[in-house]
Amino acid sequence: MVGSLGPRIIENGGIHQVKGYKMQGYAAGIKRMRKDLSVIFSTEPNTAAAGVFTTNKVRAAPVTLSEEHLASGYARAIVCNAGCANAATGEQGYRDAVEMAQLTAACLNVKPEEVVVASTGVIGRHLPMDIVREGIKNCVGTLDQSEPGAVARAMMTTDLVPKECLVEAEVNGAIVRFGGVAKGSGMIHPNMATMLGWVVTDAAVEPEALRMALREVANRTFNMISVDGDTSTNDMCVVLANGAAGNPVVTRKRGYQQLKDALYLVCETLAKKIARDGEGATTLLEVRIENARSAEDARLAARAVTKSPLVKSAVFGRDPNWGRIIAAVGYSGCEFDPAKIDVQMKSAAGAAWVLKAGEPCETLDKDGLRRIVDKDHVIFVVDLHDGEHDATAWGCDLTYDYVKINADYTT
Amino acid sequence: MVGSLGPRIIENGGIHQVKGYKMQGYAAGIKRMRKDLSVIFSTEPNTAAAGVFTTNKVRAAPVTLSEEHLASGYARAIVCNAGCANAATGEQGYRDAVEMAQLTAACLNVKPEEVVVASTGVIGRHLPMDIVREGIKNCVGTLDQSEPGAVARAMMTTDLVPKECLVEAEVNGAIVRFGGVAKGSGMIHPNMATMLGWVVTDAAVEPEALRMALREVANRTFNMISVDGDTSTNDMCVVLANGAAGNPVVTRKRGYQQLKDALYLVCETLAKKIARDGEGATTLLEVRIENARSAEDARLAARAVTKSPLVKSAVFGRDPNWGRIIAAVGYSGCEFDPAKIDVQMKSAAGAAWVLKAGEPCETLDKDGLRRIVDKDHVIFVVDLHDGEHDATAWGCDLTYDYVKINADYTT
Repeated sequence: MVGSLGPRIIENGGIHQVKGYKMQGYAAGIKRMRKDLSVIFSTEPNTAAAGVFTTNKVRAAPVTLSEEHLASGYARAIVCNAGCANAATGEQGYRDAVEMAQLTAACLNVKPEEVVVASTGVIGRHLPMDIVREGIKNCVGTLDQSEPGAVARAMMTTDLVPKECLVEAEVNGAIVRFGGVAKGSGMIHPNMATMLGWVVTDAAVEPEALRMALREVANRTFNMISVDGDTSTNDMCVVLANGAAGNPVVTRKRGYQQLKDALYLVCETLAKKIARDGEGATTLLEVRIENARSAEDARLAARAVTKSPLVKSAVFGRDPNWGRIIAAVGYSGCEFDPAKIDVQMKSAAGAAWVLKAGEPCETLDKDGLRRIVDKDHVIFVVDLHDGEHDATAWGCDLTYDYVKINADYTT
Repeated sequence: MVGSLGPRIIENGGIHQVKGYKMQGYAAGIKRMRKDLSVIFSTEPNTAAAGVFTTNKVRAAPVTLSEEHLASGYARAIVCNAGCANAATGEQGYRDAVEMAQLTAACLNVKPEEVVVASTGVIGRHLPMDIVREGIKNCVGTLDQSEPGAVARAMMTTDLVPKECLVEAEVNGAIVRFGGVAKGSGMIHPNMATMLGWVVTDAAVEPEALRMALREVANRTFNMISVDGDTSTNDMCVVLANGAAGNPVVTRKRGYQQLKDALYLVCETLAKKIARDGEGATTLLEVRIENARSAEDARLAARAVTKSPLVKSAVFGRDPNWGRIIAAVGYSGCEFDPAKIDVQMKSAAGAAWVLKAGEPCETLDKDGLRRIVDKDHVIFVVDLHDGEHDATAWGCDLTYDYVKINADYTT
């Protein structure tokens, strides 16, 4: 296709700028003095939907319910609260999630099965349903008065900044938009989805194509970030595609790669925002594994390095302690030959090889290495010289503030 | 057998109180102003030996060499340096490890293959062999003047306290002793062995029985501790059994259980000392998984909880945030039914159930829970009600000091 536009980020754009959606974030009172409840609503009756969900065996009630609702391939709305995860809450928790879907559906005049429900916050407490009921009514009642950024802010727990992006792309000859929001920022080591991420697009997409694209993209983006190695009970990423852009519908055979490229750009952007805003983080850590024997080997190694408390502490201290990088690759489960491995450290300050064919580069300039690591985005490249598969993972440093934030969360 | 004595700890006892061993710890100058080199020597020509080693694919040179030497089932000496791990050091690193064995063997008048070599410290640097050579000669030359505790101190890196214990037991009708020393205290998530642990006994044991007993015991002790989830490149645990006690030799059929019980007591004691002295730790965290479907399920779950940065931070903050415990069990890979799970918190201050059959105990007294968690040894019991297998793991809290120690280690 000549002249097809690749997807591009629209700077300072937001999820509210996608055609055919209304949304609102509201301060219901679950958290003190902060937006804590949000609703996203597609005005188009025929909205395809897909989701990926946590693999944690202890699943929050809304995760179970939302997976059931999304089995149809269609949904019209997402309702989400912060301040309480509604996880480890037994049968009452499930009834509460069902009621959130029913009430949202009634307010929006759709079916309960068309509503995705999500919760985030403390595990093991029941939802304050009086506040939630009132909040849902008020949130839906003010859908037309929403300000930009309200939904992203209403998802935040310990996040310091809202995470949002807007992507424009050509899909099947039409210009379509993808808006995304997400929350981090602790208990982040997603497996099949991030904590919570919503993507809405005005592209028309067949449900099956949407589902496959989301799964492929989530595996390379949200599932490649780690803040602390803890996989949450509430992870969920959902994409809605309402067709308001009027493009010929995307199927596995028509426009699928364009869809996936655009979705990838949204999800990678949000994933990096989550890693950079990890609890207490000062640095975005990017780990690229090159030339592994398999894609799974590359993924295992990349994730092990971003998850290692020793690597993360060293990055916080601007200490180029690369021995910890190869130790993490070594215990990751990745197959490789230690005698072939190269390691490079990179940042805006420069690049340097520290290990070549398994031996330390003796000419290392310690001060130069420190300058490379002393940046807010540090990249470690590990070349295994053992195959053709690459993977990239993102994480952050381990800081005093991570400990501080998590030492006293519930009390 | 009537009147058989179970193994017992001898308070304030040390590894030097086992018959037929000489040992010394020496300040060679690899680290500044500290003991950093040690030698343990069995005076008995027929000393059985067994070892377990790291599963990290990046193995330090001394690990590879020592495994080769221990294949025979016999060894006479252990030489160990701190301050440099001799890992990721290529062929030069292997030659240096060989030379350590050769030199130690020459000084002791034994064969190089009878010497176990170990190193601990920074990864990716070559050993300062001039200092090491001189140190080995001086260490062996002063074997007769060793003071108690010297070997345990000469293994320390970031350890705050030396780790040592002495156990007495009846084996095959004779009273025998087991002395153990170990080092922690970061990069601790052993897999087939702890960082470094040496056990010497004057019991006579067949090599095959010794090997099997060590493997079984290490799996339930050293392999069940975690400080930070990082499996080291240098993990190694070795046991020597020289027969100086004169007992009828232990075989798989004669005295094996007595041997294993005594070895277990030594290794569990050392393992708990390592966990309690984890980098920056203020609390020993013990996690007991009960009634799992398989032993492996129980182990996975116990280790996941002790490894979770969120659980560890909460323990540091004396925050009884038990939701994080079940989240960790949930992502551990352990099979269980979330609707059956019970969770109890225990310490010297009391005990309380926080979750029963998957639902929070609504009558929880938050201040009471805080008092339970506010102790230097905290126990979490998770009853899965799903089988008959138990496992216990030990870890420690995640503190500001862990970050501090590891933010600036090599520079």
